[in-house]
Amino acid sequence: MNESSLVARGDATAIARILANDHVADIVEALNREPREIATELLCEVPFERLVEIFDQPELDGASELVEALPRVKAGRLLAAMSVDRAADISRHLAEPARSELLDGLAPPLRATLLTILGYPEGSAASIMTTEYVSVPSDWTVGRTLDHIRKVERTRQTVYAIYVVDPRTHVLVRSTGLRRLITGEPDDPIMAIAPDRLPVTVSPLTDREKVAHLISKYDLLAVPVVENGKILGIVTVDDIIDTMIEETTQDVHRFGGMEALEEPYMKMSFLAMIQKRAGWLCALFISEMLTANAMQSYEGELEKAVVLTLFIPLIMSSGGNSGSQATSLVIRALALREIGLGDWWRVALRELPAGLVLGSILGVVGVCRITLWQYLGLYDYGPHWQLIAATVGAALIGIVTFGSLSGSMLPFALKRIGFDPASASAPFVATLVDVTGLVIYFSVALVILRGTLL
Amino acid sequence: MNESSLVARGDATAIARILANDHVADIVEALNREPREIATELLCEVPFERLVEIFDQPELDGASELVEALPRVKAGRLLAAMSVDRAADISRHLAEPARSELLDGLAPPLRATLLTILGYPEGSAASIMTTEYVSVPSDWTVGRTLDHIRKVERTRQTVYAIYVVDPRTHVLVRSTGLRRLITGEPDDPIMAIAPDRLPVTVSPLTDREKVAHLISKYDLLAVPVVENGKILGIVTVDDIIDTMIEETTQDVHRFGGMEALEEPYMKMSFLAMIQKRAGWLCALFISEMLTANAMQSYEGELEKAVVLTLFIPLIMSSGGNSGSQATSLVIRALALREIGLGDWWRVALRELPAGLVLGSILGVVGVCRITLWQYLGLYDYGPHWQLIAATVGAALIGIVTFGSLSGSMLPFALKRIGFDPASASAPFVATLVDVTGLVIYFSVALVILRGTLL
Repeated sequence: MNESSLVARGDATAIARILANDHVADIVEALNREPREIATELLCEVPFERLVEIFDQPELDGASELVEALPRVKAGRLLAAMSVDRAADISRHLAEPARSELLDGLAPPLRATLLTILGYPEGSAASIMTTEYVSVPSDWTVGRTLDHIRKVERTRQTVYAIYVVDPRTHVLVRSTGLRRLITGEPDDPIMAIAPDRLPVTVSPLTDREKVAHLISKYDLLAVPVVENGKILGIVTVDDIIDTMIEETTQDVHRFGGMEALEEPYMKMSFLAMIQKRAGWLCALFISEMLTANAMQSYEGELEKAVVLTLFIPLIMSSGGNSGSQATSLVIRALALREIGLGDWWRVALRELPAGLVLGSILGVVGVCRITLWQYLGLYDYGPHWQLIAATVGAALIGIVTFGSLSGSMLPFALKRIGFDPASASAPFVATLVDVTGLVIYFSVALVILRGTLL
Repeated sequence: MNESSLVARGDATAIARILANDHVADIVEALNREPREIATELLCEVPFERLVEIFDQPELDGASELVEALPRVKAGRLLAAMSVDRAADISRHLAEPARSELLDGLAPPLRATLLTILGYPEGSAASIMTTEYVSVPSDWTVGRTLDHIRKVERTRQTVYAIYVVDPRTHVLVRSTGLRRLITGEPDDPIMAIAPDRLPVTVSPLTDREKVAHLISKYDLLAVPVVENGKILGIVTVDDIIDTMIEETTQDVHRFGGMEALEEPYMKMSFLAMIQKRAGWLCALFISEMLTANAMQSYEGELEKAVVLTLFIPLIMSSGGNSGSQATSLVIRALALREIGLGDWWRVALRELPAGLVLGSILGVVGVCRITLWQYLGLYDYGPHWQLIAATVGAALIGIVTFGSLSGSMLPFALKRIGFDPASASAPFVATLVDVTGLVIYFSVALVILRGTLL
């Protein structure tokens, strides 16, 4: 149990105080620290308005399970009262039969909206949009728009933008901000104060990473999701920040060679965590078995020159390290759209000399190490130690070059066939480089040591 | 040359059209694709107001070098006209003597503001804040505040929030938004429409990652930077998005085992890139040399049982993979503040059984592989093949457990001694696990194979 768990300390007054006064984000943080059963108990004590605020926070862990644990009627009122994008997100993760029961209990217009949003695939712009936005016909004046915001939209927390639509076709024509609205004269037409430019929009199926890119590029507070010119909803900057954090988590997990966890590390059940890790670990293990095959085919050489085995781990890891450098550079440049798929040959033309230079540097260090040990009498590599040093040095150049080149090309290949380049690129490269590295090492050895050791 | 380079296509009309009409973010994207000399040439053709907009975009690559390339007088006017946070960011990266010359040429109040911001360390909240924000005394009415925004702040692009300060001490007491202002009556005191709560603030030296965490947690559009209760400036949500992108890039690069690049991959000079990569690669190479030492000390065993060498790459990579899984999980959980430094033992209590289970799974797969090859006659591991299979299986359990445990503990150790846990954790773990893995493997072999092969 965490030392900051309030319930564990039996601190009932502290809990009551926090639930009543603290910022809702702090309450969510405190709830996330409690085990699920206690969180449910605490939530039953919370006044309804506060409950809505709490569930409106995307940071609340396991919100869907908590909704399922509430009495159905209360859960239904809760879904109806919270913001539409959050209600959709929670409904998406509800288990049956709770999901159907709750959706069926909602008022038909809200149910229809939720079902529309739920119809879009996870990760699309429409799946994270909210349908609560301010739009006014283009024949309104500034004064009428202000009145509308004052009266109709007074419950809205933040007005991200005001969307101006054609009064007849409802097609989005302009967007403007509150600052321009209050600077304008009440009798000005709304079109006069909006920037003279079509707003940046996305389609419902736009990937949420692309939406994040647009919001960041154009410094927007929200971007409208548009179909046939009409607004379906908006994606706001705070949803995008949550998206970016989630995507980074997934990327870090995948980069570490595993399936991305969807729950916080400490909350996840032990078995679920093993499942997410064992699959990849086994896949990598089985492909690494190729190294054993490669070694077996060089069995004769190994028996004749056991001294060669001493450097196998060193050489393999150097290939892996150079590959992982190149991979992380290219993954990130692709994610930031600094380079596109068509730039693969420009990257290859950069990584080839980079690999040769880096490999030569390591090669020199390696040769010095062997020479030093030999001269200082720390180890005796035998009468042909110069040839062994040459083998290690030459193999390092080849392996680091191959590592840099294949590490930089794999993300392109993954992206080309439709995968996320971040998905397990690094461990893939390591495996590829390990097997090839052994082959390079023994081939170099066969050339240099033939007639002496081999 | 990139195929989308306009200059390369000699498309002068297209350039003129883009510079005049496109969204400034698109212009910046087009400029970033050009080599620096051509970008400078193009910028000389741009009308001054447009130039200010272009340099106001943090996405513009090498903005400081471009400012240096402009005539000094124009560059001075440019710095004075752009937003203060951008001017500070550009000045920070100016080379001498351009920096002193430009700063000396500015109006004293602006120079003082810039020097104050530049006095804060890079990565602090104050270093990315803007001093352009709206603040009003707490004895004003809603109507007067609206008038103020209409008249004084009409050049402001976005009003993120209105900060209410004590009229005498200038201490920040409340913050509110434009929406509440519009909804209020003109004669209402401003304090009546502000939420009854002290705003979330940060101190000038707060780390920008912490600022990003607060903005995301409390769904803010801006957070004020406060010293002795008084506002120095604000950090806005779009700066935070840029910060998050930059931090993720650094983390991915470090996770890949290199120093973080500060420039886009394709723009960076070849030599600078080699420098960033060679240092870490050499450091890892030199520490991996310990594997050669470990191997040398088992030379006698290696000569007696060459068959053992066949599985060295397989076993080492499994340890590395399990370690990198554990590291990426813990790094991310630490970054998201799901766990704190004090939780290390809870993580260890989770990773120990996880490592044992994962190691056992791989161990079983490994034993099956050897048995299968032996029975199918694909390879002959000798008369003691069962013992060899047992050695590989047992070593895998030990190595995967050690990998999971050390991989999960290293980020804690790095954080404890004041380093960023993401910094090179993964390659560090790989090296640690490689060396220890060899020792575990040969120790297990000595126990199981003593009296037979060894």
